[in-house]
Amino acid sequence: MGFSENDLIKIGYQAKQASKKLSFLPSDIKNKGLINISESILDRQEEILSANGIDYEKAKADGMVPAMLDRLMLSTDRLQSMAQDVRTVAALPDPVGEIIEERDLPNGLHLIKKRVPLGVIGAIYESRPNVTVDISALCLKSGNACILRGGKESLNSNRILANVLCEAVQKAGVPENTIQFVDSPDKFLVDRMLKMKESIDLIIPRGGAGLIQSVIEKANMPVITGGIGVCHAYVDTKADFKKAVAIAYNAKVQRPTVCNALDALLVHKDIAAQFLPLMAESWGKAGVEMHCDERSLAILKGKPSLILSPATGEDWGKEFLALIAAIKVVDSLEDALNHIATYGSGHSEAIITEDKTASDRFLNEVDAACVYSNASTRFTDGGQFGLGAEIGISTQKFHARGPMALREITSYKWIIIGNGQIRP
Amino acid sequence: MGFSENDLIKIGYQAKQASKKLSFLPSDIKNKGLINISESILDRQEEILSANGIDYEKAKADGMVPAMLDRLMLSTDRLQSMAQDVRTVAALPDPVGEIIEERDLPNGLHLIKKRVPLGVIGAIYESRPNVTVDISALCLKSGNACILRGGKESLNSNRILANVLCEAVQKAGVPENTIQFVDSPDKFLVDRMLKMKESIDLIIPRGGAGLIQSVIEKANMPVITGGIGVCHAYVDTKADFKKAVAIAYNAKVQRPTVCNALDALLVHKDIAAQFLPLMAESWGKAGVEMHCDERSLAILKGKPSLILSPATGEDWGKEFLALIAAIKVVDSLEDALNHIATYGSGHSEAIITEDKTASDRFLNEVDAACVYSNASTRFTDGGQFGLGAEIGISTQKFHARGPMALREITSYKWIIIGNGQIRP
Repeated sequence: MGFSENDLIKIGYQAKQASKKLSFLPSDIKNKGLINISESILDRQEEILSANGIDYEKAKADGMVPAMLDRLMLSTDRLQSMAQDVRTVAALPDPVGEIIEERDLPNGLHLIKKRVPLGVIGAIYESRPNVTVDISALCLKSGNACILRGGKESLNSNRILANVLCEAVQKAGVPENTIQFVDSPDKFLVDRMLKMKESIDLIIPRGGAGLIQSVIEKANMPVITGGIGVCHAYVDTKADFKKAVAIAYNAKVQRPTVCNALDALLVHKDIAAQFLPLMAESWGKAGVEMHCDERSLAILKGKPSLILSPATGEDWGKEFLALIAAIKVVDSLEDALNHIATYGSGHSEAIITEDKTASDRFLNEVDAACVYSNASTRFTDGGQFGLGAEIGISTQKFHARGPMALREITSYKWIIIGNGQIRP
Repeated sequence: MGFSENDLIKIGYQAKQASKKLSFLPSDIKNKGLINISESILDRQEEILSANGIDYEKAKADGMVPAMLDRLMLSTDRLQSMAQDVRTVAALPDPVGEIIEERDLPNGLHLIKKRVPLGVIGAIYESRPNVTVDISALCLKSGNACILRGGKESLNSNRILANVLCEAVQKAGVPENTIQFVDSPDKFLVDRMLKMKESIDLIIPRGGAGLIQSVIEKANMPVITGGIGVCHAYVDTKADFKKAVAIAYNAKVQRPTVCNALDALLVHKDIAAQFLPLMAESWGKAGVEMHCDERSLAILKGKPSLILSPATGEDWGKEFLALIAAIKVVDSLEDALNHIATYGSGHSEAIITEDKTASDRFLNEVDAACVYSNASTRFTDGGQFGLGAEIGISTQKFHARGPMALREITSYKWIIIGNGQIRP
């Protein structure tokens, strides 16, 4: 028997029902559920690894590329790290019930703006099975029910993980159907899920640009999009070269496959001839491939052991997710701002300068979730920002922007306490 | 001639350009623009009233109902009140640049979460021309460009108002194209506008349920919906009858045509026989038509000068916008909660009780933008809540909920100031 459209509609209804109870579930029950998850992941690791092994072997036989296979694969270490992450979420303050504002109005009404869960969160993601645990834990902590739809490559892994999660939370007294899993590889169920605004309050897509675009187009409920970062660093005339090289190196090389990694370096024309050889030497040692505009190519050409090529139009506004950087010489800060406005994805942008006026202008005018002065774009991360967790990085301006943690998947309600007040 | 699809696309592009400058425009220029608007509305009142007269006569000839004609009509008094409202907005604190959070991270990075405008706001509304001024003022103050599309009935009024607004703000040094107007009654331009997510960051529909539903279905950018209120008051066993009568009277009678007016009264069975006659007597004097369930009808039947009829299925979950109330006797608080969960629109819900346990449960469990204990639902309003203004009342949970003022049409950005930090 398979998972049908009716099953999907049913879990939508069940999730909505569960979310009503969840919205005022005491913190200690939610935390007990999280601790149980953490323990069960370790207690049942054999089952989990065995199911994951089936996914892995099948994906390998089907010719999945090594980078993707690596994302799919679980191991004892990875399970331990997942279990630890869930404990971290348990230790965070409960966002639900937080008083955001509170005041007495002149007529004696007492007004409270209080944080509440959103309701039901749907997650659509690709092959990484740890997302199943991550999102479940963050949703539970924030009082949201969730409906999970992972990639078909990790179906067996997700099935056992969902089973572990559900059992663990129910033992703690968390309402049934708080965490539910779309147990089917059928793509049409994803399309159907995206039309269920009566039961899903928010969709979070996690994956590549194709997945995200498709979700935006099809969903009839709010979507939080992100995860696509075309990040720039602009090296100003007044830059400290040592800092600039260290920052651009870190931003490009430390983990090139993630969204906050650097894609394009913009260098002021007045310092390009001095700065670019230092930068290129450093990047060159790490094997960074450099796609250079005309002026930067003229400066770097002929230097030993660099991988250089002329930049094409496609290099601007491209998220490389690899050891590749585009390089452009710009005439001015203004020029850099225009380039970023045209090609940036609103994720993370940096200026390197010792000139406070230039830095202030950049921080003020660049329209992105995270704008940096003299620091690596790699810091764009919920954990690094001190949010304690991360459910994604939003590049939209609506509802939440930048790293999203628990508060970012909540709403609020206004509570008004009177003693008979009527409106004059 | 006429306003074409190309013109619409052009104003979208222009609005986006204007929004970039607006996002860091100093407060004093924005405020000067608002003061100029306020003055110009009064200075040019003859032109405005004359254009409005054309709309009014045409609408009257076309058979527009008196209530709608009243919404369309401007007068010297109304223009004065509009001008005053704009001055009030000028006097509010500028939300842009507000520091929402600020802290130093252990690695020395200085992190600032700062409020920024959303960008371009599109407004689609019906016949009330004052909305043109309201939304323009709130958008300008919050650093957002706006594209206005009012009802075809008020085309002449809106055209002259848009002209007054643009001239007034430009004299203050506000960027050109900050306020733009879709100068056409063509409906297909609305549909086209709803697909312009590349240039419009948020759509606010203001009008009836039909308009709002259509915007939700067609828009490819975020929409803030609201303005539909199916509001309940639940009179508990421990209610103070005097308060209950006063509150339900106020909520139903004071201004029945607005979204925060009461629609249905739920009364606990144990007090229904005592309470309902008092309530009905009070409502009866104001001419409130009562649609009663079986039990309430049995109690009220035969009382003099009441307009009673048996409630039909359609009476539950209906926004009456008139002197009509549905009445239902419920078995318990639980029953009332279930009724509200089923039929409420998530706008404003009230309990009347002296029992703190019942009140707490109601405030906690009812899932609505505004939940009241012992006060009238009519208080759901930006001005009443002390927000200083109101651009609408959101009944969604995403981004903003309840009365929306300036902050609710902003986003934020993360600013990270370092001195060379890289991620380890």
